Amino acid sequence: MPIISIGQHVINRLKEIGIDTVFGVPGDFNMPLLDIIEDDEDLTFGSNANELNAAYAADGYARVRGAGALVTTFGVGELSAINGIAGSYSENVPVIHIVGAPRLAQQRAHLLLHHTLGNGDYQVFFKIASMVTKASATLTLKDAASEIDRVIQTAFVCKRPGYLGIPVDLINSLIEVSAHPLQLQVPKNPEKIQSIVLQNILNELQVAKHPAIMVDGCIIRYGLEVEANAFIEKSGFPTFSTPIGKGAVNCELDNYRGVYCGKLSLDGIQEEIEKIDLLIELGPFKTDFNTGNFSYGMEKVKTIQFHSTGTVIDYAEYPGVCMQELLPLLTLALPKNKEPTHLVPRVRPSSTEVNGTEITHNYFWKKVQGYIEPNSIVISEAGTAVFSLFNMEAIKGTTYISQILWCSIGYSVGAALGAGMADRNRRVYLFVGDGSFQLTAQEVSVFIRKGLTPVIFLLNNDGYLTEKLINGPYRDYNNIPMWEYSNSLKYFGGYLETNKTNGKKPTEIGVEAKVSTPQEFEDAMEIVSKQPFKIHFLEVVMPQFDAPKELQILASDLKG
Amino acid sequence: MPIISIGQHVINRLKEIGIDTVFGVPGDFNMPLLDIIEDDEDLTFGSNANELNAAYAADGYARVRGAGALVTTFGVGELSAINGIAGSYSENVPVIHIVGAPRLAQQRAHLLLHHTLGNGDYQVFFKIASMVTKASATLTLKDAASEIDRVIQTAFVCKRPGYLGIPVDLINSLIEVSAHPLQLQVPKNPEKIQSIVLQNILNELQVAKHPAIMVDGCIIRYGLEVEANAFIEKSGFPTFSTPIGKGAVNCELDNYRGVYCGKLSLDGIQEEIEKIDLLIELGPFKTDFNTGNFSYGMEKVKTIQFHSTGTVIDYAEYPGVCMQELLPLLTLALPKNKEPTHLVPRVRPSSTEVNGTEITHNYFWKKVQGYIEPNSIVISEAGTAVFSLFNMEAIKGTTYISQILWCSIGYSVGAALGAGMADRNRRVYLFVGDGSFQLTAQEVSVFIRKGLTPVIFLLNNDGYLTEKLINGPYRDYNNIPMWEYSNSLKYFGGYLETNKTNGKKPTEIGVEAKVSTPQEFEDAMEIVSKQPFKIHFLEVVMPQFDAPKELQILASDLKG
Repeated sequence: MPIISIGQHVINRLKEIGIDTVFGVPGDFNMPLLDIIEDDEDLTFGSNANELNAAYAADGYARVRGAGALVTTFGVGELSAINGIAGSYSENVPVIHIVGAPRLAQQRAHLLLHHTLGNGDYQVFFKIASMVTKASATLTLKDAASEIDRVIQTAFVCKRPGYLGIPVDLINSLIEVSAHPLQLQVPKNPEKIQSIVLQNILNELQVAKHPAIMVDGCIIRYGLEVEANAFIEKSGFPTFSTPIGKGAVNCELDNYRGVYCGKLSLDGIQEEIEKIDLLIELGPFKTDFNTGNFSYGMEKVKTIQFHSTGTVIDYAEYPGVCMQELLPLLTLALPKNKEPTHLVPRVRPSSTEVNGTEITHNYFWKKVQGYIEPNSIVISEAGTAVFSLFNMEAIKGTTYISQILWCSIGYSVGAALGAGMADRNRRVYLFVGDGSFQLTAQEVSVFIRKGLTPVIFLLNNDGYLTEKLINGPYRDYNNIPMWEYSNSLKYFGGYLETNKTNGKKPTEIGVEAKVSTPQEFEDAMEIVSKQPFKIHFLEVVMPQFDAPKELQILASDLKG
Repeated sequence: MPIISIGQHVINRLKEIGIDTVFGVPGDFNMPLLDIIEDDEDLTFGSNANELNAAYAADGYARVRGAGALVTTFGVGELSAINGIAGSYSENVPVIHIVGAPRLAQQRAHLLLHHTLGNGDYQVFFKIASMVTKASATLTLKDAASEIDRVIQTAFVCKRPGYLGIPVDLINSLIEVSAHPLQLQVPKNPEKIQSIVLQNILNELQVAKHPAIMVDGCIIRYGLEVEANAFIEKSGFPTFSTPIGKGAVNCELDNYRGVYCGKLSLDGIQEEIEKIDLLIELGPFKTDFNTGNFSYGMEKVKTIQFHSTGTVIDYAEYPGVCMQELLPLLTLALPKNKEPTHLVPRVRPSSTEVNGTEITHNYFWKKVQGYIEPNSIVISEAGTAVFSLFNMEAIKGTTYISQILWCSIGYSVGAALGAGMADRNRRVYLFVGDGSFQLTAQEVSVFIRKGLTPVIFLLNNDGYLTEKLINGPYRDYNNIPMWEYSNSLKYFGGYLETNKTNGKKPTEIGVEAKVSTPQEFEDAMEIVSKQPFKIHFLEVVMPQFDAPKELQILASDLKG
């Protein structure tokens, strides 16, 4: 069995799950691990401005590359990150949180060290972490090798966060480790039950007159887009996507019909939905905002649910018959491609309306879509941005990142950093409201340091609009101070000419402007389009109470 | 019994413990409570930029006024704040964390709502909160009245955080509440044991040849400065302060000898310490940094420890004989004021050395002290600032705020906001390093919105110096991007002329400058001194590896 250091083994296992960037913030209990990361030619340290942003970045990165990781320090650092970790749990994203802890001997002596609660309890933060992760461990010399493998494997397979606490004096300790790669495949489905399930599904499909497919978030989280699209294409069934499932379906397929989200759907979608007599749900995620606040209206329809943990056929549960294996088998077993049912043209958002001299949501989203090239990464903040994107037409090959379930405002800024680090060949478009931006704004400086080139749209409607629509539209608590947003790159980019970025050239700044009219916006985008290798920041001034229809409906439900 | 709403009862109880500002961030589950706060003429909402900063602010506020509070929203908001709450726990600061939660019926139906883990578990965040608070409750209609009283009372009396989760639909529900005020006094000490303890202490004092007093943090946390100083004055014993206890002793008393912190102490202090044969420790807090990394060296000395939970006389423990009641009794029982032992002049830091054209720590701290008027509030960040202040001479009536135990970097910015809100008649001086500032910088905008006028010193040594001294001085992970710090007030103050601050005039900006030489610093301070009603921001450029001696010693210990 190979002998290597604990820190190196962690790093090797992270690489095995596809990680080349580890986010985080240095602290006195984690630096020997950062040494290993910095010395590794294939790894980059994320250098976040704070730990919450690091967790958001690791989450955004994982949504593009399949897994993410961050390093923080004991107590103060890990707790600062925990909202981001809980978000990854909620939204099924595998993020490995590595925490440098005090020396084992100091822990066992219950010393009153800094970064502790001052009561000698060295287990409390681990206990807290265990409540929002799928697997967690505090390493000892004896169990480090197996525990590292168990935590990383479980997190990766279950698409949930994992936690590794490492006493700082163990990071360079040598251990014997397994020579085998991690076991990253889901276990095989039970063969006999699976064949029954398959047959039952084929029977249901045969009798159904109007079967349809609903693609949801777990298809994306489990990386099953290829398998899902093969099934969609071969079946020819009309296919819809939920908001969380947006981007999973190849939008060039004729049978892709657009996003369904209950009462938030585009006019025309509901009529198509009402015809369905059998709904095949791929990776469903039936949360409030993903279902138009539970206005899904499928109670009378037979459903077949494909989950990562089992299958449900019209209320009959088959735990352990997981979609990863079942879905390709079903595609294989499908009768020869049916002719697509005589499909009407796909429902599309109505065309751009320029409403006077203001940049309204109605204008903005339809217009901005035209500037986004295929295969982009579009990140939208909870608030006007994410709800506007529900019904925006899907762009080919584009990944949509947002927290439709966890909805932690400020997330999008960190996530955009992570997504940018995950794939430097795809352009990142970040849509963030002014209120949300203020929570995590400092991460803009890391974009510049790391040479990233996102296009940042700061939607400035002067306050917490989502909250205003729910309660207290004229309350002072829903106001925020105005910043000089359109100086963000200059402020956070600092003295760019002297900026140390480890010898590398930092990002070049392209357009940084405040735009208040459609004309100003389009003039700025003209330049942005032509400069893909620069970072751009557009402060888009919008009317204070203008909101997309989708948000207006939800906010009205939430009013109480 | 009076009948009022749950929200109003919470607010009334917060006022009873002296709170006039509630920090926090609005969220869809807490806004009805914010309505009550905003409608209350005697209360202000803190309007923080994010929840972690709100928790830091509530902590800073509590250190000036005796208690603090913040409101966040379920899941996302409360977890973002939890590092700040854990810090308050660690450092014995009573902060009430109020969390708006989903409606009770929704919780009981285990709906997959936003801000949840998506698994129907509505208890998980409460369980997490319970691990870093002294008292916690999720309210129901039935127990709200008593649980609110229990949590706030316990937090206040024990000087630890409390947690109140309130389902949003209960905020305006009416309940019968107690007509009695909260019970905020500590329970009486057991009379018989106390009289034995008192006699034993008097006996020890009679035989001691060189008794001395060490004043530590719990004197400040429990608000016993008056009682401690009465004892110090009447006894005439040589009195020292620990770093956490700094500011508690009236520095005009002849028998105050300065700060003792083991091997980090000023030359000359150690000799005085070595003479002691009986040490009376008031509110000890024996953590690593507070004891010069456990170099306290009092093993051979008899000690009498005064705690908030009991008394220890030379290893004999008397639980329940608490200092709150015992200390004044001891002062009363002391024999007539002894003549102070022939005291040598107090040890003072050596005088200012201007070292060429650079602003070194050696120059800066000695110089800046001359500008700080009595009764100020001095807030210092973990790092060069807090360790430099260990041995800086105490300024009369001045409150020193820092996290010497929890050491969460970024804390000082939020804490300075809280301290400023807690007392607008005392000038706030904030000392924060560039690395730490980047974690929580956005809170600067709240200073301006709230009309506060701190003097902010941004100590710019281009990176995480404390970490560099411990590990990897030339590592890229210890570098940070350079910001345009000296445009912070302009950037975060935004379009000041149009800034909405609820009709109130926002802060006027005074000096905002980058100073790199002693002359530039002194010129700027000349103006700062004359403009107490403006906010000032000085970016103080320091040599990259210059550090106070105290930090150098500690960092060397931490090297591993």
